[in-house]
Amino acid sequence: MQSSDDDTDQTYGYFDDQNYEYVITTPYTPTPWINYLGSNEFYGIISNTAGGYCFDRDPKFRRLTRYRYNSVPLDSGGRYFYIRDENDFWSATGRPATTQLDQYSCRHGMGYSRFNASKNGIATQVTSFIPLDTKAEIHSLVVTNHTQSTKSIDVFSFIEWCLWNAEDDGANFQRNLSTAEVEIEGSTLYHKTEYRERRNHYGFYSVNRQLDGYDTNRESFLGPYRGFDRPEVVEKGQANNSFARGWSPIASHHLKLELAPGESQSLEFVLGYIEVSVDHKWHSKNVINKQPAKDMLTRFDSHEKVMDELGKLNRYWRTLLCKFSVETPDDKFNRAINIWNQYQNMVTFNLSRSASFYESGIGRGIGFRDSNQDTIGFVHMVPEKVRARILDLSSTQKFDGSAYHQYQPLTKKGNANIGGNFNDDPMWLVLSTTNYIKETGDFSILQEMVIYDGQEQATHDHFDHLLRAFMHVINNLGPHGLPLIGRADWNDCLNLNCFSDDPNESFQTTQVGASDVAESVMIAGQFVLYGQEFVDLCQQVGKIELANRSMKHIEKMRKTIEQHAWDGEWYLRAYDSRGKKIGSHKNSEGKIFIESQGFCAMAGIGLNDGKVEQALRSVDKHLATDFGIMLNQPAYSQYDKYLGEISSYPPGYKENAGIFCHNNPWIIIAETMLGHGEKAFEYYRKITPTYLQNRQTLLKTEPYVYCQMIAGKDAANPGEGKNSWLTGTAAWSYYAATQYILGIRPVYQGLSIAPCVLPSWKLIRVQREFRGAQYSIEIHNPHGLSSGKITLSIDGQPVEGNVISSSSFNGQHTVIATMV
Amino acid sequence: MQSSDDDTDQTYGYFDDQNYEYVITTPYTPTPWINYLGSNEFYGIISNTAGGYCFDRDPKFRRLTRYRYNSVPLDSGGRYFYIRDENDFWSATGRPATTQLDQYSCRHGMGYSRFNASKNGIATQVTSFIPLDTKAEIHSLVVTNHTQSTKSIDVFSFIEWCLWNAEDDGANFQRNLSTAEVEIEGSTLYHKTEYRERRNHYGFYSVNRQLDGYDTNRESFLGPYRGFDRPEVVEKGQANNSFARGWSPIASHHLKLELAPGESQSLEFVLGYIEVSVDHKWHSKNVINKQPAKDMLTRFDSHEKVMDELGKLNRYWRTLLCKFSVETPDDKFNRAINIWNQYQNMVTFNLSRSASFYESGIGRGIGFRDSNQDTIGFVHMVPEKVRARILDLSSTQKFDGSAYHQYQPLTKKGNANIGGNFNDDPMWLVLSTTNYIKETGDFSILQEMVIYDGQEQATHDHFDHLLRAFMHVINNLGPHGLPLIGRADWNDCLNLNCFSDDPNESFQTTQVGASDVAESVMIAGQFVLYGQEFVDLCQQVGKIELANRSMKHIEKMRKTIEQHAWDGEWYLRAYDSRGKKIGSHKNSEGKIFIESQGFCAMAGIGLNDGKVEQALRSVDKHLATDFGIMLNQPAYSQYDKYLGEISSYPPGYKENAGIFCHNNPWIIIAETMLGHGEKAFEYYRKITPTYLQNRQTLLKTEPYVYCQMIAGKDAANPGEGKNSWLTGTAAWSYYAATQYILGIRPVYQGLSIAPCVLPSWKLIRVQREFRGAQYSIEIHNPHGLSSGKITLSIDGQPVEGNVISSSSFNGQHTVIATMV
Repeated sequence: MQSSDDDTDQTYGYFDDQNYEYVITTPYTPTPWINYLGSNEFYGIISNTAGGYCFDRDPKFRRLTRYRYNSVPLDSGGRYFYIRDENDFWSATGRPATTQLDQYSCRHGMGYSRFNASKNGIATQVTSFIPLDTKAEIHSLVVTNHTQSTKSIDVFSFIEWCLWNAEDDGANFQRNLSTAEVEIEGSTLYHKTEYRERRNHYGFYSVNRQLDGYDTNRESFLGPYRGFDRPEVVEKGQANNSFARGWSPIASHHLKLELAPGESQSLEFVLGYIEVSVDHKWHSKNVINKQPAKDMLTRFDSHEKVMDELGKLNRYWRTLLCKFSVETPDDKFNRAINIWNQYQNMVTFNLSRSASFYESGIGRGIGFRDSNQDTIGFVHMVPEKVRARILDLSSTQKFDGSAYHQYQPLTKKGNANIGGNFNDDPMWLVLSTTNYIKETGDFSILQEMVIYDGQEQATHDHFDHLLRAFMHVINNLGPHGLPLIGRADWNDCLNLNCFSDDPNESFQTTQVGASDVAESVMIAGQFVLYGQEFVDLCQQVGKIELANRSMKHIEKMRKTIEQHAWDGEWYLRAYDSRGKKIGSHKNSEGKIFIESQGFCAMAGIGLNDGKVEQALRSVDKHLATDFGIMLNQPAYSQYDKYLGEISSYPPGYKENAGIFCHNNPWIIIAETMLGHGEKAFEYYRKITPTYLQNRQTLLKTEPYVYCQMIAGKDAANPGEGKNSWLTGTAAWSYYAATQYILGIRPVYQGLSIAPCVLPSWKLIRVQREFRGAQYSIEIHNPHGLSSGKITLSIDGQPVEGNVISSSSFNGQHTVIATMV
Repeated sequence: MQSSDDDTDQTYGYFDDQNYEYVITTPYTPTPWINYLGSNEFYGIISNTAGGYCFDRDPKFRRLTRYRYNSVPLDSGGRYFYIRDENDFWSATGRPATTQLDQYSCRHGMGYSRFNASKNGIATQVTSFIPLDTKAEIHSLVVTNHTQSTKSIDVFSFIEWCLWNAEDDGANFQRNLSTAEVEIEGSTLYHKTEYRERRNHYGFYSVNRQLDGYDTNRESFLGPYRGFDRPEVVEKGQANNSFARGWSPIASHHLKLELAPGESQSLEFVLGYIEVSVDHKWHSKNVINKQPAKDMLTRFDSHEKVMDELGKLNRYWRTLLCKFSVETPDDKFNRAINIWNQYQNMVTFNLSRSASFYESGIGRGIGFRDSNQDTIGFVHMVPEKVRARILDLSSTQKFDGSAYHQYQPLTKKGNANIGGNFNDDPMWLVLSTTNYIKETGDFSILQEMVIYDGQEQATHDHFDHLLRAFMHVINNLGPHGLPLIGRADWNDCLNLNCFSDDPNESFQTTQVGASDVAESVMIAGQFVLYGQEFVDLCQQVGKIELANRSMKHIEKMRKTIEQHAWDGEWYLRAYDSRGKKIGSHKNSEGKIFIESQGFCAMAGIGLNDGKVEQALRSVDKHLATDFGIMLNQPAYSQYDKYLGEISSYPPGYKENAGIFCHNNPWIIIAETMLGHGEKAFEYYRKITPTYLQNRQTLLKTEPYVYCQMIAGKDAANPGEGKNSWLTGTAAWSYYAATQYILGIRPVYQGLSIAPCVLPSWKLIRVQREFRGAQYSIEIHNPHGLSSGKITLSIDGQPVEGNVISSSSFNGQHTVIATMV
């Protein structure tokens, strides 16, 4: 066990690997530390005190419950349970009631969260999850009387309904305060706002026990001008049985529990979403058809049934996660790879960049660039979903090879407001597709017929989309022969053609002036790297002529980069709209950038003449900090309209010299390509959350997932994190760790083994499911190497080279790889 | 004094006419009861506990402070002052601290609000206002020690900065949490987020005394997960001197006061907004130029200076309000006309429909329809501003006579997202213009050259705009010869060409299918009414030929209405897209609508054959309730896509059979035209807030201003108000009361006197400023009439007819009008 010495400061929580959980020990974390519920279409975000909301498919258009972003108090709105014992009351999830608990913990697990609290000898446990294939949150509450006497306890549940469209819900009050409608039947509180008109869906909140009261009107439940911390109804101990008409509808159940000494009672709460076909909307005039809700409720009407569903969910996650597991001498590495990084990868698949503590759920659609990259983090777990996602992305490509920058998940159409011309976008489709084929061996994706944007009927196959992506770069070269940057490349904030001086303009979508001058070295490197992948793919499918023709473009680009994009000690970042260098020692600020070093190095440009080695040394010298590698240095101290948003941020934040974690793995991969196992690992552990437990207070964000950005050295608090969870960092870190540090890398022929690890790692065990076979791999490192040659045996038989050829195997196999 | 018996239930507040104030006696009003600060460009909304925010010109793009709409607790964010006395602390404005005060009142006055509180013998008074020609809120705090011993008091101010763009501020957290920047110098806390890039403006919060501490970081001030009710800093009694970098910036001053028995001390807080030219933005590198702020602060550095500015503001308002004042036997009528209705009219001029407790300030621009109508409420107070507003509106008209439905106040360009084709829009320009000329005698507005939308240079004068407005109706007639309705007429929710079945579509801006069938009887009546005004205007300016030609169109429309729009007992409302009648006894729901009765009656269509009389009887029979006249009956119980949004509301709310107060004055005016003084007055007092003091609890909204909508009889709580302040009801009620009940009506020749009042009103005194002269008018009603013939004398000289000819008079004059 290495690096356990890092774990001494666990102010707010710790890992429980046995249960695949992170245990949070106080309601008062530096920011709300969230988890995600749901695995398909229906999702919830839930904080360590049950704050958050749930939605069906789209957090903007189908939001069930109301949440207040950046609110006071922080983290306002959630699934609350108030426990009242005589005149004392508290929250079973630690907040919003402010009563100090005798015990509190929140355990964020894989797709569920569990809240334990106790006070006055009354213990509660809330288990929150979304069962498989179910459009409902389950909140299972168990109350136990640990005292010596019988206890009369009041339980009040609480959620607040969102009027479906989350953006309108927070703006259009002149309408919304007049529209709310509910129905109440038995123990189920139904929310049917707008159902009488164009909606064919409603929500409900139910519990499997007869009610002692209820409330559906918020002000009635809370009392005048009160917060969630002390609802009037809870304070007085009796529901008002309020019936919401307009204003703000809520759902609150009141239940009286009589508990003998030692007795436990359980209550199963179901917060569900129902769609009904137009023909079956109504039971009778203005009375909704409740049958589908009742049908759903029968699945969760006992504690046993609910726990059974939780068991299914646990097995689902274990099955996903065990497709790739590792046992190295470093527990933190194992924990990252086996549990949290894979989990975060799946969340980025489900949520893209839509809903987190930092993404308000009313902003972005599915990003073309983001989602293509994300696939490299979970293709081994859900290859069939990746295949569908890639084809969705492909279908928003335009006929000239460019792509819509985002598409809307409900319509799967490109988002016209945002448009295209982010010139790195197309080549990411080559990465996702080739990586998918290498994982699965499924070349048939290339023959799928896929529309181009605006087409009704597909006229070309997916391979053609890749070709047009490739040619889009070649067809859009600038004065030096480098790719034109367009609105922006991977760095959304380097806006060389915007020239904005209006603070209400979006840097990304406002485009003024010439766009045929500014060039991106990052796209150039990306083109060489993924262009080579395209060539390899052509060769795999027998398109030798096309491969050769394409190779010439790549060679030419490689030479162009060497000629025009080398600054002496590192690669330039770009040429601006006036043809001036960016990321050069000649600049006074922004002398060096990480992105072009990463991509030119990964592409091996200048590998033979020492340029890669030199570029990486420069990264280490100028950009590396204790908290990760910064994006650029020196930070821009002033706004420059020729650079755009990057220079709008205060120094040290975001793209202006922040540690933008997404790109750190590019350097890690490049270091492994040079065989620098220790350097690669050093960079890896600086940003990987399992190593950051002693930094919980500084980091502020959840110490079990990557965040997009850590403040750089120019910031007020270097090391402070922001924008956790939904970041490409997750996929890239996983990709770097598994395919380049561990070196377990799918190739067209099979699985290659090429580790680049710490010399101290003498034995690594890997379990890997791959193309229908199950491999138990042992990597032996008897000489304490970082990298080098591999000798391989499969099921005891020596094998030439370092590739496990997939064509030969099914079933279970033992692989011994020895570093020599 | 009539109707004083209505005032017995003043649960939440009462009028103080002497001071032109409404006095609120509890922090816990049914909804936050707000007031407006500011008279030009810089505005604030402020609740009875100082909740709300301020902004420069545009509440979306230049918002200074953060406010949380529909929050928990309700009304979160404002200008807070915490007073701490030993371990007790409270809010000088009643909230957000929950400490029960010994005394509390909020006095909302004309452009200022004053908060009195006392606790433990410590009295505070906060006076909040925006001085004339000043971009700052002043909050003057006086603390008095009424105890017998010396007191050590801590004062903590608090405001939270909005990052300027209010919409982005509430959505784009992945960026916004990294951008905040502040500076601190002396007692001034500066907010300069984005100033280093594209903004040339900053905010500041200052106090005229040396600080004992400060805070600029929200979480540091509040403590973890705390609400505004108990900031940690206030609880412990010492500021943290926090310096905000990113996250959420605030401004809080900490001041320690030592007060001898009986001593008062005053503190003058200034919350200001500064724009600096690009050349003078910086004092030195990254240090903002503070000189303009310092210059402003010298104007408010003593209590005397501040009170002097308040005096100027008071005189400004008294001068505005006294241009028309009245003394009838009914105090509530006087109060409405002399103070609150005029005040509300000015607020609708300043704010349009942008920022209220129901309008979130990120939605609508200036409405073409709204703002033209609003002018009739304040043209007598600020004629020069009305002239400019009319020309702004005119310049967003299109060449075909149609109009953009809204324009943005910052750009004065038509809002393309919303577009046009609301076919009542054009004719409102005729109302505003003719009403302006009648008030002022200023025909020169007609010769002003005004662009049409898209023009760089104006090619036509404003009169041409009116002509094109008139012709737009004639050029867009439907199958019966009635005007096509387009997207909607005055009733935004009657959408006959939308056919929406997608809940995320806007009824107003989605247009599908044919638009050449559905016709509006309301526009037909409006055309006859304002078409006649156009004809009169043509005659005034000698365009006799055009007048005659136009008159033929009007006569034809009048006949068309009589032929195709009379349903037997009332006027139809419309023909839908299939040519079917709406608002007919043949319909099962929506048999009768108010709008067409109002406009056909005001236009005198069928006056001679009893149709008007009959239509008004039907209104009384089918639509009138104790709380006002409903929009339609019976309410729509189901959604009908051929009707649109009107049928989307639950019955009794908004346009679906709510009491939509805006149109009640149309019926009031129509009743006066028939000489029905008592009926007109009955309708008037049902919706006029000065008469609703005994309904404070039911009404919920501010009982000193009109609200847009009062729930109708089909609603759960008939009489419950919503959407107060920003409504055309204010202008129309004032117009009806002054020009039709009092009958003091500007005409081209001068001021006509034609009252239609309660028979019990024997003497009415009016002070009226009109075209440079000042008239003291006495209306004598010795025979207890409602209406009838008038004999007139001016300065003791009998005058023929009932018009005071403006051409004859300057200076002060006494007018005696006698109803005979």
